Amino acid sequence: MESNRYARGWEKLKEIDGHAGERVIESLKDTSPDLARYTIEFPFGDVYSRGVLSLKEREIATVAALTALGNAQPQLKVHIHGALNVGCTRQEIIEVIIQMAVYAGFPAALNGTHAAKEVFAERDKAGQSN
Amino acid sequence: MESNRYARGWEKLKEIDGHAGERVIESLKDTSPDLARYTIEFPFGDVYSRGVLSLKEREIATVAALTALGNAQPQLKVHIHGALNVGCTRQEIIEVIIQMAVYAGFPAALNGTHAAKEVFAERDKAGQSN
Amino acid sequence: MESNRYARGWEKLKEIDGHAGERVIESLKDTSPDLARYTIEFPFGDVYSRGVLSLKEREIATVAALTALGNAQPQLKVHIHGALNVGCTRQEIIEVIIQMAVYAGFPAALNGTHAAKEVFAERDKAGQSN
Amino acid sequence: MESNRYARGWEKLKEIDGHAGERVIESLKDTSPDLARYTIEFPFGDVYSRGVLSLKEREIATVAALTALGNAQPQLKVHIHGALNVGCTRQEIIEVIIQMAVYAGFPAALNGTHAAKEVFAERDKAGQSN
Amino acid sequence: MESNRYARGWEKLKEIDGHAGERVIESLKDTSPDLARYTIEFPFGDVYSRGVLSLKEREIATVAALTALGNAQPQLKVHIHGALNVGCTRQEIIEVIIQMAVYAGFPAALNGTHAAKEVFAERDKAGQSN
Amino acid sequence: MESNRYARGWEKLKEIDGHAGERVIESLKDTSPDLARYTIEFPFGDVYSRGVLSLKEREIATVAALTALGNAQPQLKVHIHGALNVGCTRQEIIEVIIQMAVYAGFPAALNGTHAAKEVFAERDKAGQSN
Repeated sequence: MESNRYARGWEKLKEIDGHAGERVIESLKDTSPDLARYTIEFPFGDVYSRGVLSLKEREIATVAALTALGNAQPQLKVHIHGALNVGCTRQEIIEVIIQMAVYAGFPAALNGTHAAKEVFAERDKAGQSN
Repeated sequence: MESNRYARGWEKLKEIDGHAGERVIESLKDTSPDLARYTIEFPFGDVYSRGVLSLKEREIATVAALTALGNAQPQLKVHIHGALNVGCTRQEIIEVIIQMAVYAGFPAALNGTHAAKEVFAERDKAGQSN
Repeated sequence: MESNRYARGWEKLKEIDGHAGERVIESLKDTSPDLARYTIEFPFGDVYSRGVLSLKEREIATVAALTALGNAQPQLKVHIHGALNVGCTRQEIIEVIIQMAVYAGFPAALNGTHAAKEVFAERDKAGQSN
Repeated sequence: MESNRYARGWEKLKEIDGHAGERVIESLKDTSPDLARYTIEFPFGDVYSRGVLSLKEREIATVAALTALGNAQPQLKVHIHGALNVGCTRQEIIEVIIQMAVYAGFPAALNGTHAAKEVFAERDKAGQSN
Repeated sequence: MESNRYARGWEKLKEIDGHAGERVIESLKDTSPDLARYTIEFPFGDVYSRGVLSLKEREIATVAALTALGNAQPQLKVHIHGALNVGCTRQEIIEVIIQMAVYAGFPAALNGTHAAKEVFAERDKAGQSN
Repeated sequence: MESNRYARGWEKLKEIDGHAGERVIESLKDTSPDLARYTIEFPFGDVYSRGVLSLKEREIATVAALTALGNAQPQLKVHIHGALNVGCTRQEIIEVIIQMAVYAGFPAALNGTHAAKEVFAERDKAGQSN
């Protein structure tokens, strides 16, 4: 049933970044609630739930892609939080972003680093240890 | 010295995909030998040699980014070979590419899958076990 | 004559979004007045004036493309206004943007939705009925 | 149930381009059968089945986006066929592509036109009337 | 008059690359003759005819942009020919392309170099001295 | 030695835009000091120091590419300053940006123009003559 995908997606998203998930759902609920539902069902209910890769490996892939694409800063910040939540260190995030200078150029890597810097400051302020 | 970066880059590239490295150098040697040198020095001598991330994690990041960007099929194929050479399974490659449907759309994931299919066929033909 | 293209473009732009057109011309008049002129002449004087497609169909195409490209939020907002002005409903705009999750990924669709949300709020505030 | 989304997606895809759907499934069945399934379920089972927009309007949006992105020629060709199958004329396709010169530049529009030219030739050869 | 822009564009295009211009017009004449006309009028009749920058500077800008975008190889090749025709040396072309590794990543620069290599070979075969 | 590349890069960056260079280094020093170092070494120590092209020609290439890519506004502003510092006039910058309407579409050119407008205002405020 559809609701299984949603429930599974919501559980998976909570493992990665429950607060961000709630904010996204909340921000879409008046304008595009079906997109909110799809965002839980397909990425998290279908894809992140597949196993094979660890959540850490999946977040490395996502941080790499969003840094390289360079036009999705809000989502990049969500996934830097997510990567840290599932076991990446800050230094590992920085390494992924440096590597994107090779594949998408220095501006992509610099803008990705500024996203990381903002996320690290948010977490310091919230008293999070990593 | 510059030559240390080149030597270190070449060693690192050999760990990932020595044949592809030779082909790239060879293909550039008349037209742009300095770009060939930079391609060894910066990506492999500087970045992939940094540690912190495993080569497997670095190749997951690269396959993700090149699938998402969608305009670098030759380099994507080189790094699918590279990912397999440093310990990814074929199924892990396929998972990274499926995940890019979420961040860059289904055409990016479909075209990345076709690149993977070609690489797998090349390796089957060469008798490589993964 | 050039001026025919400009006059025709200006008339067409007024059908779509006269206020936005004036703001764009105004914002460019000191820095790049010729770009302002070209922006009237080619897109609106030449292209949108061609017929064959209705203005509603043309705005669907534009909202789709700008959502997918993801690096032109100001222009996307102008064309969401334009689409509503030429007969799209808000729900139709949302549908076009949801569909872009398929072709350009969820971040593109989410960021497009936030642009739409801002436009809808501007129109609510201005007392516009759609 | 999942299978409802798949069945609904398959029906919808058959309305748009049944042959292309079969070719995509066939080409993925050994390498990434789950991506094949997702390609039916999410784009066609979820999105194209939503109503609100006509299939003609949805195909206008897709041809616009894929022309603008410029890195998905195989999928652009599938959707030019699809657009013609659901009621667009050839001239309407050409108009959408011309319009993309405004939003993504002339190279995108020129390459989109070449994709259309190939599709039109395939259909002429197959004796299709539009 | 429109025809002035076309005539001026055609003259300008002949300075840059007359053969390529004829091929583009020829290839579009059945499918999208108006796009062919716009391709002469706006880029060449309006933009390249403006002065302020030399044609060599304009071609440096175009080769840079098309290498960076990475999804317009046919147009990149036309403009590498054009750059050489208006006074760039082969080495200058190679320098512009190397520089794009910084802004758009190594794959963009490598693929741009392969386009240049093909153009240089075409010119060698045609007995052109630069 | 590595330090030669850094020293050479820093000298070259000072020719182009010393203040911007200091700000970038400063902004990265806690989060990613190695990326700061690479940003001096590879782009400026290796590439901009190569000769063959004048710094003015190199900045024309960079302003073109960053305008076309459209997702690197901070870096575009740095390089508009840089272009003016190495001998471009404001009108030449505007010409490069207008030309990008042809290759990357009008939104890219409009957003590039707004970046230029901000840079020109900063320089007027600072009493710079060009």
